[in-house]
Amino acid sequence: MADRLHNWGRWGSGDEIGTANFITPDTIAAAATLVRRGAVFSCAIPFEARGPRYPTRLPPQHLMKRSGADYAAGHPTYGTMPDGGMKFADDYLFAALQCSTQWDALSHAWYGDTLYNGVPETEIRSTGAARLGIEKLYQHFVGRGVLLDLPRAMNGGERLAQGYAISDADLDIAVRAARTEVRRGDILLIRTGHVPWFYTLADEREFWKGAPGLGRSTVPWLHAREVAAVAMDNVAIEVQPPEGADQGLPLHGLLLRDLGLTLGELFDLEALAADCAADGVYEFLFVGQPLRIPGAVGSPINPLAIK
Amino acid sequence: MADRLHNWGRWGSGDEIGTANFITPDTIAAAATLVRRGAVFSCAIPFEARGPRYPTRLPPQHLMKRSGADYAAGHPTYGTMPDGGMKFADDYLFAALQCSTQWDALSHAWYGDTLYNGVPETEIRSTGAARLGIEKLYQHFVGRGVLLDLPRAMNGGERLAQGYAISDADLDIAVRAARTEVRRGDILLIRTGHVPWFYTLADEREFWKGAPGLGRSTVPWLHAREVAAVAMDNVAIEVQPPEGADQGLPLHGLLLRDLGLTLGELFDLEALAADCAADGVYEFLFVGQPLRIPGAVGSPINPLAIK
Amino acid sequence: MADRLHNWGRWGSGDEIGTANFITPDTIAAAATLVRRGAVFSCAIPFEARGPRYPTRLPPQHLMKRSGADYAAGHPTYGTMPDGGMKFADDYLFAALQCSTQWDALSHAWYGDTLYNGVPETEIRSTGAARLGIEKLYQHFVGRGVLLDLPRAMNGGERLAQGYAISDADLDIAVRAARTEVRRGDILLIRTGHVPWFYTLADEREFWKGAPGLGRSTVPWLHAREVAAVAMDNVAIEVQPPEGADQGLPLHGLLLRDLGLTLGELFDLEALAADCAADGVYEFLFVGQPLRIPGAVGSPINPLAIK
Amino acid sequence: MADRLHNWGRWGSGDEIGTANFITPDTIAAAATLVRRGAVFSCAIPFEARGPRYPTRLPPQHLMKRSGADYAAGHPTYGTMPDGGMKFADDYLFAALQCSTQWDALSHAWYGDTLYNGVPETEIRSTGAARLGIEKLYQHFVGRGVLLDLPRAMNGGERLAQGYAISDADLDIAVRAARTEVRRGDILLIRTGHVPWFYTLADEREFWKGAPGLGRSTVPWLHAREVAAVAMDNVAIEVQPPEGADQGLPLHGLLLRDLGLTLGELFDLEALAADCAADGVYEFLFVGQPLRIPGAVGSPINPLAIK
Repeated sequence: MADRLHNWGRWGSGDEIGTANFITPDTIAAAATLVRRGAVFSCAIPFEARGPRYPTRLPPQHLMKRSGADYAAGHPTYGTMPDGGMKFADDYLFAALQCSTQWDALSHAWYGDTLYNGVPETEIRSTGAARLGIEKLYQHFVGRGVLLDLPRAMNGGERLAQGYAISDADLDIAVRAARTEVRRGDILLIRTGHVPWFYTLADEREFWKGAPGLGRSTVPWLHAREVAAVAMDNVAIEVQPPEGADQGLPLHGLLLRDLGLTLGELFDLEALAADCAADGVYEFLFVGQPLRIPGAVGSPINPLAIK
Repeated sequence: MADRLHNWGRWGSGDEIGTANFITPDTIAAAATLVRRGAVFSCAIPFEARGPRYPTRLPPQHLMKRSGADYAAGHPTYGTMPDGGMKFADDYLFAALQCSTQWDALSHAWYGDTLYNGVPETEIRSTGAARLGIEKLYQHFVGRGVLLDLPRAMNGGERLAQGYAISDADLDIAVRAARTEVRRGDILLIRTGHVPWFYTLADEREFWKGAPGLGRSTVPWLHAREVAAVAMDNVAIEVQPPEGADQGLPLHGLLLRDLGLTLGELFDLEALAADCAADGVYEFLFVGQPLRIPGAVGSPINPLAIK
Repeated sequence: MADRLHNWGRWGSGDEIGTANFITPDTIAAAATLVRRGAVFSCAIPFEARGPRYPTRLPPQHLMKRSGADYAAGHPTYGTMPDGGMKFADDYLFAALQCSTQWDALSHAWYGDTLYNGVPETEIRSTGAARLGIEKLYQHFVGRGVLLDLPRAMNGGERLAQGYAISDADLDIAVRAARTEVRRGDILLIRTGHVPWFYTLADEREFWKGAPGLGRSTVPWLHAREVAAVAMDNVAIEVQPPEGADQGLPLHGLLLRDLGLTLGELFDLEALAADCAADGVYEFLFVGQPLRIPGAVGSPINPLAIK
Repeated sequence: MADRLHNWGRWGSGDEIGTANFITPDTIAAAATLVRRGAVFSCAIPFEARGPRYPTRLPPQHLMKRSGADYAAGHPTYGTMPDGGMKFADDYLFAALQCSTQWDALSHAWYGDTLYNGVPETEIRSTGAARLGIEKLYQHFVGRGVLLDLPRAMNGGERLAQGYAISDADLDIAVRAARTEVRRGDILLIRTGHVPWFYTLADEREFWKGAPGLGRSTVPWLHAREVAAVAMDNVAIEVQPPEGADQGLPLHGLLLRDLGLTLGELFDLEALAADCAADGVYEFLFVGQPLRIPGAVGSPINPLAIK
């Protein structure tokens, strides 16, 4: 790893949470002071079948075990109180953990035969991720969130084009437009406008022809600023197709594996961005905790920005 | 409904979120000021097969679509960069939405043929809850959390006994012990010690013989204090078996249906309670947002208390 | 029902299997004598994600709970014998019961508020089909199978065109070409060539623009011949779009509901048809039993024709 | 393998179906002549949550996507014909493929790092069994079935005791009682009475304390008689606990891996056995085909015995 930007060993040979280590009680307490109006903005798309879900994953399937219609059709009540007994609706879900707004765990992606911090790939088995599972982050990510609104900052308000590789210079422009700075422990929300565009399309196949996303020059930029996590309103964080000649998702390797930097995908930043543009405040308390699923390599989330 | 304690119509005939309406931007902003140390406490049990899950529900099943072991066994990489190409682990989940730490939506329980605010039960079908779905609460529950630690306050530190019906007087004792008051818009976390006891048992069947929980006298107490939500470390909020002669879960009817008060179950309050006992502070910022699943009648959650 | 072709009450008011009643021990014993060469032809398409599955249904998802790769990665063996202990692979399936080669149960489709034989629709609930479930047919369909090869008999060997409504006259042509007759208790396999065409398409959306299938004139034809079941190599048995002005699937009503005639879909009849064309024998022992799933409204099957 | 009883290479180095190779068109044609009365006996237990399912597997979960109750509650019809439009019930299943009456594929169990016929365990991955999948047997098992009724033949009609190791001598007794012989290509159904006993128990934990099943001496017996498959009304074929000092399931290794002999479990042989005792005929046409699921290591089945 000597020739690479990396955080292996930075927090000890047994560390499993990478850049989440940049979040401390002090950074959390400071982030809470950013709540001024008590306005809450969810950054989640609806968790449903229709959506910009990676084509290799099934859409989520929500099924009712029991419904109100069953009781209307004669299903017996439970007990006798009140008024003849109780009635309960109940449901199940079958879903890819990364089918909607999500975190990628550090166990989600790698290259070579080791994951972040040298964990052998053989520790990620059918039983789940013995190390680097999403549950290791179950009390994260609470902290200072910063929105970098690239469409407004550098694209005349228009969504970024498919295949556009965001550069470190682009991020600097957005930081300046946000009239703030990026600090250690921040959760960066980078808006492209790409995910909302999906819902406007008559032919969904257009969407998959490419995506705006991070280019290679952003890797040292993120590393130098010691951000805790990066989340975007695209499907795979990095530009698609990737820079250079071949396919693949190389920044997943450079960010998740080498830096141990957790990635969030399929965010919807429209409402938050509109509010930041209106009041000029691009920093907020961010709370985006995963479900506490042992051994999972990702988690559905409903991340909140609180201003 | 004239003879009952209820909130039907209080926020209009079309309201779908009930007592969550007590949460306002002001209450949220005030709650954020309760973050002093930046200490985060998750109130979630592990989302896994072993747990005090209601016996009628299946345990969650986490399955890997692809793992590190597959790549070690020869599965081809994706792309060529870096170093031979990327590798991805991916997973699926099949789960009852209420198999672990959860919110019950207002569409989860009722009696008669209407749910909260007069919604006909026929609107809860196999397609999900057309109204009162959990997604209506997707930017809730952020607010002031208050822990009422009943074991410490009134039971010598011991978990409450199975079948113990918590009274309004018990809640008053715990409020006094917390040296604070309950305010409109609060999310009340009421500790019994029951869920953690599950994990100590050699024979799980002991656990299901009964549970401590809320008794009927707490209903007007909660109504009068205008709490936004109640969550507990038991399985069904109310005492089991219920007070009075018959089986059933009548308080689900009085709370969810009549008051429109969202209920949280299978919380783990041990770490939070120990911290509150240590620093004497029983109020905190609470963030327990559901997943944004349209039409769901509950949601798995990972609720956080931030002090 | 007086104005309709129907079988309600024909086998008693409590009957739940409809035209399967035409199958008797005598017809089964006679069918067994049709096995001459001991050649077995499966009529199942592969039960996998890629296939002409009705677009409203999810593709099946096969997931491994444990695999050989896990053991290669270090998963412990079970016991010590032989040679260090046993190893087991295990798997799960999440699937729509009608996502592949299937029977539609009599509880699958109806119109008005009653199903076959007057069963109220309110008996088909989230708990499943209290009556008319597929499990009622768990010792069916064993009997004489007859292949009607429409492409060879009347279309120059070409698959039937999308939107082609098969008439009773077409079926007569195919029966004559088969040089046999249709008898009471038969399971009719009607070939169109439509399902195999799916697999040749570069753009799957072509497939869903229409389908050849049964037209209305076949209903009295099937009724008069007292067939036990009809199965086809299309997705919905009947022509799509349907004859007449409106959309819908009216023959499901006339066949499943009124006649109580079980329907099989997504069959693959290519290998069987080639063999019948080669040896001129269009009758065989057919064994197409459903899984014994209580309350299911359909079942995946692997139907066999044995010559 | 030189020191073991095995069939590796017997049907070529690329063979994937093992002893199923003993079934030929001739044996199938001869088996069909065994159908005299046209009586059909399913050997499947109900595919439902309650059953003698191996405790490590989840119970199957059958869920309705749409039901009759939904339509009664106002769900819109499809089309307008007949009589206002069609109505459809539809369902999903989440199940371990081996949760009920099943075949174990040759990819289900092994020892060392190779499966039957030297297939490396690394070919069984999250993507399924690249070789030895159950789909390779999709036109099997059709052939002569023989019932060996051990309770009637050697136990006074009583079910065999838990922990009873069936010997080759026991099998000989049952063959003599059946007044027939075992031939190459047969599918042997061996009755113990164990699975039906499950349903009589008030406390299911009794069931898991042990099981009657095959002992080691039956391995050369089965090998010598060139049977195509063995199926039993127990959960794991072999005696539990196993003979000798340690736990484990060694006969799975000797039978599935070394002989390539497919195993069937969780059969219900009660009705068939009663009929065989009544008419003295213990041979029949057996049809027990798996679902055509590519890469699966087992399959739910509904096996039929036809007399």
